[in-house]
Amino acid sequence: MTNTTLTDIADITDTTDTTDTADSTAAGRIAVYAAATPGAPLERTTVPRRALGPHDVLIDVKYAGICHSDIHQVGEDWGPGIFPMVPGHEIAGVVAAVGSEVSRWSAGDRVGVGCFVDTCRTCDNCRAGLQQYCTGEGGVVFTYNSVGRDGTPTYGGYARQLVVDEGYALRIPDALPLDVAAPLLCAGITLYSPLTHWGAGPGRKVAVVGLGGLGHLGVKIARAKGAEVTVLSQSLSKREDGLRLGAHDYRATSDPATFTELAGRFDLVVNTVSADLDLSAYLGLLRTDGTMVQLGAPEKPVTVGAHSLLNGRKSIAGSMIGGLPETQEMLDFCAEHGIGAEIELISADRINEAYARVLKSDVRYRFVIDAATI
Amino acid sequence: MTNTTLTDIADITDTTDTTDTADSTAAGRIAVYAAATPGAPLERTTVPRRALGPHDVLIDVKYAGICHSDIHQVGEDWGPGIFPMVPGHEIAGVVAAVGSEVSRWSAGDRVGVGCFVDTCRTCDNCRAGLQQYCTGEGGVVFTYNSVGRDGTPTYGGYARQLVVDEGYALRIPDALPLDVAAPLLCAGITLYSPLTHWGAGPGRKVAVVGLGGLGHLGVKIARAKGAEVTVLSQSLSKREDGLRLGAHDYRATSDPATFTELAGRFDLVVNTVSADLDLSAYLGLLRTDGTMVQLGAPEKPVTVGAHSLLNGRKSIAGSMIGGLPETQEMLDFCAEHGIGAEIELISADRINEAYARVLKSDVRYRFVIDAATI
Repeated sequence: MTNTTLTDIADITDTTDTTDTADSTAAGRIAVYAAATPGAPLERTTVPRRALGPHDVLIDVKYAGICHSDIHQVGEDWGPGIFPMVPGHEIAGVVAAVGSEVSRWSAGDRVGVGCFVDTCRTCDNCRAGLQQYCTGEGGVVFTYNSVGRDGTPTYGGYARQLVVDEGYALRIPDALPLDVAAPLLCAGITLYSPLTHWGAGPGRKVAVVGLGGLGHLGVKIARAKGAEVTVLSQSLSKREDGLRLGAHDYRATSDPATFTELAGRFDLVVNTVSADLDLSAYLGLLRTDGTMVQLGAPEKPVTVGAHSLLNGRKSIAGSMIGGLPETQEMLDFCAEHGIGAEIELISADRINEAYARVLKSDVRYRFVIDAATI
Repeated sequence: MTNTTLTDIADITDTTDTTDTADSTAAGRIAVYAAATPGAPLERTTVPRRALGPHDVLIDVKYAGICHSDIHQVGEDWGPGIFPMVPGHEIAGVVAAVGSEVSRWSAGDRVGVGCFVDTCRTCDNCRAGLQQYCTGEGGVVFTYNSVGRDGTPTYGGYARQLVVDEGYALRIPDALPLDVAAPLLCAGITLYSPLTHWGAGPGRKVAVVGLGGLGHLGVKIARAKGAEVTVLSQSLSKREDGLRLGAHDYRATSDPATFTELAGRFDLVVNTVSADLDLSAYLGLLRTDGTMVQLGAPEKPVTVGAHSLLNGRKSIAGSMIGGLPETQEMLDFCAEHGIGAEIELISADRINEAYARVLKSDVRYRFVIDAATI
């Protein structure tokens, strides 16, 4: 189920817990890896930790995945960031302490935290369990690079510890190792939600565009849901991997024959690639009533000829991570089907090297930081 | 129910039937209005009529609507056309004769013909009643500017008569006057189909962008289906009309307040406007899981920021007319709810004048040609 490789962990000696108080419910400081300024390399430092409120849980982070969006945010590609920035929203750990009013968690529980740590809780979307689309006052508080309702910045999962509201932690089933579970909290739910919403399952043909951190989980999940799965990748270089992960077919998008041979084939195309694609060509791969779902956010706008949509009643849609109930459902589904991310486990001092490799798409398929090395 | 105005009909004296044979089942010629060459004005002439095959019906055309796409095709805006071109795919008439094997129609039946007159009949879409999306050999044979499976060009509804396969005529219920029924065969089904497919009905909020030939029928149909209907028009100049036709609200898109006040309001936005709109702004009007449906085909590609789709799991879709069963359902629905097009009835010698006015959006809301004047 996992490709875990703990590289160069032997040379890591500094595992000192820098938390500056013995009382885990008091405010303190947490050891983290942070970028001090926009685009700066990540370095070991400490950031404040809030006192444990009655509904908070203190989590000992065990593993944190490196998501491409971490790199975008450190680099301020999407707008001004809050610095120092501690990235990380693919977090797996163990509950260390709970607030006075917390009943659903106990010390020792295996938990995950994803892309957000608070929402308004009262808008239609929050009440429908679609917290990721919260439209209420203050909206979504992201796990890092965001400001909480208490006015303080949020710091993410490249950290020894994390304090979050009890409602925004998810249970990681025992069957899921924590290291391969971490990337499920963002990459996994980002694929699980649209595959579920648009009905990937028996009798349905699904194409996954791109076999990276997102795409490889899309293949595993779509296959487990019973769909017929095809990977559409620039080249055939990862073909063996794709088939091993569960794809029934694997085609190169650099080959024009792919678009003629597979014309009208798919009910659903999930696009994990942020690059500028010829969407009209991909829409040609859809059957009548088919949907192409954008999961990444390319810098350039999406451009498509209207005729490609009209002829066959096709849709281009977007989907963004998932809500809390669906994220829990995803973790349970992955545990049941033995699905974890394929990871390269690294020590924290290799984060900057990992960033460089992610930018070259040189990772199979997700870097995960061993938080004990922070 | 109708705004029928028969303008200047008094000065039309040439109503000679130029059909050159007394035997209505034999091949012959039909009086038509046609463009001889690309962009040429439409003039009275004759074109061949095929002999009535065993499954054909001969229709005496009574009324033909003028669709904006007629003008595009005469002008070769969408590619090379077949000339002489007889436009017209909003056709209402009466069966004059039937082929030897025809059982479903009899002389005197009130019938309509829409945008297509043949499809493969065997592909998945044809079998599902979605003939407009036929993917079979030869695809859709359009009512005009197309080549039939017999290799001859098709000629449209600006004609005294029309021969079509019995399966591609629809029954116009007695409750629907033929003149106001004609535009339903294209404009009506173009709105009815997406409003039905995306669930316009009680408890759903629908916006119709543009109050023209398509939009005014969208308002009537969406209202009759029980949805809450808002018109989004450039200005408020047609506001009274819009409210009279059934809209609950009517807003100007030239007023930026429209986009803030109505943010997140609609389940469905149907866009009847082919002009280049700021789609991201319109997507902002959608609720979570909302859909914006393109019905027109702008010359420029559709461009939208991916974030506008991702945040709220929104979709941009296309829809193109409707299949035969749904077109019949639409006619029955319109008859039941007293829905016809708002028309300006004209004599055939005013077609070119009407074209000029359509290009200026100067029609409320559809020109319909009285075929007796051809």
